[in-house]
Amino acid sequence: MSLNAVLSRIDNDLPGALDRLMELLRIPSISTDPAFKADCARAADWLVEDLKSLGFEAASRPTPGHPMVVAHGGSGGRHLLFYGHYDVQPVDPLALWHRDPFDPEIQDTPKGRVIRARGASDDKGQLMTFLEALRAWKAEYGTLPCRLTIFLEGEEESGSPSLIPFMKENAAELKADLAMICDTGLFQDTAPAIVTMLRGLLGEEITITGPNKDLHSGMYGGAAINPIRVLSRILGNMHDDSGHITIPHFYDGVTELPDAIRQQWQSLAFDHARFLGDVGLSVPAGEADRTPLEMIWSRPTAEINGIWGGYTGDGFKTVLPSEAHAKVSFRLVGQQDPFAIRDHFRAWVRDQLPADCKVEFHGHGAGPAGHMSVEDPAFEAARAALADEWGRPAAYVGCGGSIPIAGYFQTVLGMDAMLLGFGRDDDQIHSPNEKYDVECFHKGIRSWARLLARMA
Amino acid sequence: MSLNAVLSRIDNDLPGALDRLMELLRIPSISTDPAFKADCARAADWLVEDLKSLGFEAASRPTPGHPMVVAHGGSGGRHLLFYGHYDVQPVDPLALWHRDPFDPEIQDTPKGRVIRARGASDDKGQLMTFLEALRAWKAEYGTLPCRLTIFLEGEEESGSPSLIPFMKENAAELKADLAMICDTGLFQDTAPAIVTMLRGLLGEEITITGPNKDLHSGMYGGAAINPIRVLSRILGNMHDDSGHITIPHFYDGVTELPDAIRQQWQSLAFDHARFLGDVGLSVPAGEADRTPLEMIWSRPTAEINGIWGGYTGDGFKTVLPSEAHAKVSFRLVGQQDPFAIRDHFRAWVRDQLPADCKVEFHGHGAGPAGHMSVEDPAFEAARAALADEWGRPAAYVGCGGSIPIAGYFQTVLGMDAMLLGFGRDDDQIHSPNEKYDVECFHKGIRSWARLLARMA
Repeated sequence: MSLNAVLSRIDNDLPGALDRLMELLRIPSISTDPAFKADCARAADWLVEDLKSLGFEAASRPTPGHPMVVAHGGSGGRHLLFYGHYDVQPVDPLALWHRDPFDPEIQDTPKGRVIRARGASDDKGQLMTFLEALRAWKAEYGTLPCRLTIFLEGEEESGSPSLIPFMKENAAELKADLAMICDTGLFQDTAPAIVTMLRGLLGEEITITGPNKDLHSGMYGGAAINPIRVLSRILGNMHDDSGHITIPHFYDGVTELPDAIRQQWQSLAFDHARFLGDVGLSVPAGEADRTPLEMIWSRPTAEINGIWGGYTGDGFKTVLPSEAHAKVSFRLVGQQDPFAIRDHFRAWVRDQLPADCKVEFHGHGAGPAGHMSVEDPAFEAARAALADEWGRPAAYVGCGGSIPIAGYFQTVLGMDAMLLGFGRDDDQIHSPNEKYDVECFHKGIRSWARLLARMA
Repeated sequence: MSLNAVLSRIDNDLPGALDRLMELLRIPSISTDPAFKADCARAADWLVEDLKSLGFEAASRPTPGHPMVVAHGGSGGRHLLFYGHYDVQPVDPLALWHRDPFDPEIQDTPKGRVIRARGASDDKGQLMTFLEALRAWKAEYGTLPCRLTIFLEGEEESGSPSLIPFMKENAAELKADLAMICDTGLFQDTAPAIVTMLRGLLGEEITITGPNKDLHSGMYGGAAINPIRVLSRILGNMHDDSGHITIPHFYDGVTELPDAIRQQWQSLAFDHARFLGDVGLSVPAGEADRTPLEMIWSRPTAEINGIWGGYTGDGFKTVLPSEAHAKVSFRLVGQQDPFAIRDHFRAWVRDQLPADCKVEFHGHGAGPAGHMSVEDPAFEAARAALADEWGRPAAYVGCGGSIPIAGYFQTVLGMDAMLLGFGRDDDQIHSPNEKYDVECFHKGIRSWARLLARMA
């Protein structure tokens, strides 16, 4: 019995592991849309059954939203908690998918075999890498590698409204020595990476109302205020010509990158041209004095994620609508306070509102930026294990996305978190035709086996 | 046999006239949405049958779009052409309707009885006032009052793409001494009005593309351009702080109102506060140095009639979309050239486009402003007939809407047009819960009987 036997078992059972992942991918667990509530519960139940088959005591635990999957198993060694999420992003625009997003398929592509489906990479494929590593370990050794808690969320893609209350209510049960979070990617597709900086996220929905009903633009056009015009004007002012965000106090708490980190990032030789070129772009859109890597890892953003108002169907309608809407989000860094920024944004919008217009705001989740401590020796053990599998040292990197759970493990449970994962930049997460490379899935499983061997 | 007998017959047959209108209103003839193509044809067929019952030779005439209804009848006197349109606006947002827009109902309201349905006022109720007047006339006299051509369009609410080709192909058949167009309203609800100035209309649909696919705003936010941000910024610049439109050359051909017309309009004692107050507003939104009446009758506009992009469903999605869209329209006055303005608008958008973005335009109809001659003695006859019915002299007024057909009768058929109708400002045309006052319908029918008696 040895790590090599576990790795061989993983190699031999890859078809079975893919079949299990495809079963999970067939469940359309879109958490943000209430129409898929039963599917979210079904995905949780599927995971509970799978965890039970690995010897865990596992249960789907109710929340006001979608259930949490919590499982306990193994004994001895360090007590590790593993976190992933079983919910997925919506699939619109559906017309751009080449097949049903919930009918997964293994496809041959010029860059290798991929698993194509919504959630293949974010996060069902990633979370299954850990469970498959445990499955091989258990088959080989007859036990789990150490004391383990599995904690799988179903609201990660919709602002995690139940997460903090659930963690607080179950703090004693959930507390472990270290949390492992598998929801991030490789660096430039081939280098394993551990994320130490995460951006925070603030979501705001804004509705501007002008006339008390939709009007005919012939009868009223020119005299009556058009809320789409007001909304466009306000949101069009959110950036200046150099990409700087104009909301007063927005940059409060934004710190400059320490020289040591800047130098480390420069040594990563990030391919800026390829990063933008992959998505059909060539000119960085952020602040003119920053590199794209700084823009996405260390600078805050203000983005309009959705806008709608008036007539949006086929043809034309000369309507002057009563309402216009937008969904706006901010990625936060350093010590930016999401609640202060919410207040500053709302005040800034109100200050620009013409007489006669009303505005309503609806908050959609708010989390600060995350900064991971790497003092726990498990981090160096993980880097070594990852280097064994990938043939390259693991890099400490930033992440432009927001994984608030890492901060919550620190603030709510007093537990450090290690973020690592095996996604690639071209996985098209949150987009049509999401995929996960079979190579990433396979080597991800092997990576966890190596990590557990060194850390447990 | 006398006009009074015709008027009595109209009074007595009002319930029957309302029943017939409700039959027509039950047909959802939304011309802009291809899903309702068969319903448009059905509305045309219904009118053909009704016209045949009045003794007309009538037919539904095919076009590349929706059919034209053309009917000929009567003899002697002046040859009058009557124009109306049987198509209606879309009904969204459907949730704001208090009942099915195509299940018409007579309702008692504090301001009197109304016919509630999409198209009740614009334009099915209005066009039926003319047909009902003919019905009473025919019943009383046994013949139609004079030589008449009826010309009913089914594409008025979707840019009239087939209109000019059809008029050109059938010019000899359609030419009459004078056109009567029933698609306008009373002045301030009680005074009959004949429209002598109409604004033109230009429609443009714009699509801005940034990244070649939807992106995750965590992975790319800050570095990748967001087309909603670009679209908002461009459209937000379309007006300056004083409401002036900033597109270069936009005001070419805009003439100042002649003093005589300005004085006449001032004498109308338009209630500006009530006009805006009726729709929940108090501050005119147009150019700061103009009155609301000038804004809607004599000044051009630039309006965003629809905008959409990114995620617009329930919840939140941190997407950075590939595309953003808007429908923009311009109301035109004086000698503004719609085709020149289309070019100026497109150039102005392109000039503001960031490096990595593309823009596509789709034109949605273009017609210049209209200026009616009132030299034909029929205009004074009509004013007298309207004064008989309404107890107030008919005013010559402007109209903020665009009724391109009036200009086409002049330019294509060399025929003057008289625009009069019986709508009220609170009819909510193009909006949810459209209505037509039973009083307007009833007195509208009586008005046409009086006009025909004086003009035929």
